[in-house]
Amino acid sequence: MGLIVQKFGGSSVANADRVKNVARRVVATHLEGHQVVVVVSAPGDMTDDLVEMARGITDRPPAREMDMLLATGEQVSIALLAMAIHAGGHEVISLTGGQARIRTEPVHTRARIVDVDRRRIDQELEAGRIVIVAGFQGITDQEEITTLGRGGSDTTAVALASALGADLCQIYTDVEGVFTADPRVVPAARKLREISYDEMLEMASSGALVLQTRAAELAKQYRVPLEVRSSFVDREGTMITNNSIERRRVVTGVTHDRNVAKITATGVRDEPGAAYRIFRAVAARHVNVNMIIQSVPRHERADISFTVGTADLVAAVEAVRSVAADVGAEDVLADDGVAMVSAVGAGMISNPGVAARMFGALAANGINIELIATSEIKVSCVIRADDVERAVQALHAEFQLDRE
Amino acid sequence: MGLIVQKFGGSSVANADRVKNVARRVVATHLEGHQVVVVVSAPGDMTDDLVEMARGITDRPPAREMDMLLATGEQVSIALLAMAIHAGGHEVISLTGGQARIRTEPVHTRARIVDVDRRRIDQELEAGRIVIVAGFQGITDQEEITTLGRGGSDTTAVALASALGADLCQIYTDVEGVFTADPRVVPAARKLREISYDEMLEMASSGALVLQTRAAELAKQYRVPLEVRSSFVDREGTMITNNSIERRRVVTGVTHDRNVAKITATGVRDEPGAAYRIFRAVAARHVNVNMIIQSVPRHERADISFTVGTADLVAAVEAVRSVAADVGAEDVLADDGVAMVSAVGAGMISNPGVAARMFGALAANGINIELIATSEIKVSCVIRADDVERAVQALHAEFQLDRE
Repeated sequence: MGLIVQKFGGSSVANADRVKNVARRVVATHLEGHQVVVVVSAPGDMTDDLVEMARGITDRPPAREMDMLLATGEQVSIALLAMAIHAGGHEVISLTGGQARIRTEPVHTRARIVDVDRRRIDQELEAGRIVIVAGFQGITDQEEITTLGRGGSDTTAVALASALGADLCQIYTDVEGVFTADPRVVPAARKLREISYDEMLEMASSGALVLQTRAAELAKQYRVPLEVRSSFVDREGTMITNNSIERRRVVTGVTHDRNVAKITATGVRDEPGAAYRIFRAVAARHVNVNMIIQSVPRHERADISFTVGTADLVAAVEAVRSVAADVGAEDVLADDGVAMVSAVGAGMISNPGVAARMFGALAANGINIELIATSEIKVSCVIRADDVERAVQALHAEFQLDRE
Repeated sequence: MGLIVQKFGGSSVANADRVKNVARRVVATHLEGHQVVVVVSAPGDMTDDLVEMARGITDRPPAREMDMLLATGEQVSIALLAMAIHAGGHEVISLTGGQARIRTEPVHTRARIVDVDRRRIDQELEAGRIVIVAGFQGITDQEEITTLGRGGSDTTAVALASALGADLCQIYTDVEGVFTADPRVVPAARKLREISYDEMLEMASSGALVLQTRAAELAKQYRVPLEVRSSFVDREGTMITNNSIERRRVVTGVTHDRNVAKITATGVRDEPGAAYRIFRAVAARHVNVNMIIQSVPRHERADISFTVGTADLVAAVEAVRSVAADVGAEDVLADDGVAMVSAVGAGMISNPGVAARMFGALAANGINIELIATSEIKVSCVIRADDVERAVQALHAEFQLDRE
């Protein structure tokens, strides 16, 4: 008997049959004697449809009203799922982000969760109910509806699991777990039984779409026991915990991310504050920057390159142009024909030479590297988007990830 | 400079162009120097679509979860309308029923408004904003989302107008005002410039769909100055006030209602408490009863007939059957092939003989009357549904309603 938080994505509740399928899964867990809190996303394409409706009105909807609009998607899901569970004769209640008291900062379209007041959820669980909570949304102190940004339902699930001290947080998705590489690119890719928080975080932030980066971050921070598994196949997924049995392996997985664009400010004056000015301008537009590379200055001028998500390219270029004169930049170049490939593994810490092997494997396949960034357990390379599949295949083979 | 509440129905916000049209109307009022609070319904068929989604899950969705689901419709409308007004460069904010603090009883799918805490709305108006409020929905003391039942947006508008002490409450709809009869049935029907609260209430409750009955009731109770007018044509509608200039007219309008079903319990024992038992059972199922007729008892047995909305027929029959043995009823008959035709006019009070003229006109057209009910200013007859158009035409002619 424990408390389990289960999160189901939009494709898991895309139609009535799928909603009923999720209901069966939730009820099965409940009947095993667990208390269950379920987090759901908006059904299927509803969020996209709502965005489309807003575009029919204006190109620049105010962020507050976008949140008001988009929050309806999850509200539809929680009501339908509660109906399906109720139809099976089980006690259940749905709660909006506001009713579940998921308090966020007063920021729209990408708010962060400040805390969760668990009293209402506790009260419903104590009454023997299955509790369905709308993912992706929260409420401010002023009762304003906020959303957490795309993929925010994962974050809701992990935040709830943490606040409630859950024994397990299960992320149900359309893949069976975390793989050594995207199986659509590498047919020999293998499902991992277990990986560490750090590895999950690096994989999520470098293109593995199974879990939202912020959710991985939060899970790591609060040590939330996490499982990524399939909504459609009842099979064990990948456990994400503090200790990885795959630790002796040098590289655990290879990820890639096509959602990358590169911006370069050329000939920036090599003086204190130049980078600060550029990235302050970028941050002011709420653009997340991934890699930042500054070239070695020549004649007191340097090039500064960085990567952002493709959706943020226009805003990022605008930001850099707005300060180009201040920092003496000669030109601002935008390139959305790039992608990123990364090798991730906790074993890298004690195994030098992973980066060298990676560069060697790419070179052997004639793949040029444009930018490089490393962390303790990851090496990432920006390459041409056209090369990305070959790069992933080459690295998966190089590190022998098809072998158990 | 005053405060105006404007209510727009679902067909007025059914698509992007119509939302923009509503935005123009609202902004025009704002630019005349008024403070404007707007109430909107769910777009077009969205409520029906949501009901359909629920039916895909279960035939008997819990009322609480239906409210959770249906409340999303108006939330979509308020967000889109706020976006359209904002796009025109005006300060605006949308508020859900909960954010607008429209407090209701803790009853689902047909809650009554208990009160409106005007502080949030006042604060937004004082900041110079146009305020858009979701119709049809409210919130309980326990933060539960409730809905007011179909047509509840009219009630929201009148309740807000009353709570805010508005100078005028405009109900924008797809007809140009209140007519002497349904123009689709009587081409010579005339738009009324003004009618009294009592007349509006009787007309609304007897089939005139321009205004929801509870809204008319509330408007009468709190003396809210009301105008019913067209969303699509910018023309004066019908004013509903305490004094009707049409008072000297004996009959102001003829209404009809096809949404009527008749239930008869035959051979009920003529003893104290029999009617009480029947209608307590009906009320327990939240069914609104319209007419009630008890026949003159013969051999200590009487027939009790009453009418309900067709949607409530099954529930009402179940209710009567559940107490049939207790009251000695011989049979419970259900008939949904009936309709109601009514003549309404404040002038009836001082003009006896209206009922007689009405029965005469129906008889002259070979129309049989099954039940009769009267109020001070209304005479209603239940007839066969097939006769309803001819009945309305006959009565409109009899009382010369085509003449100014």
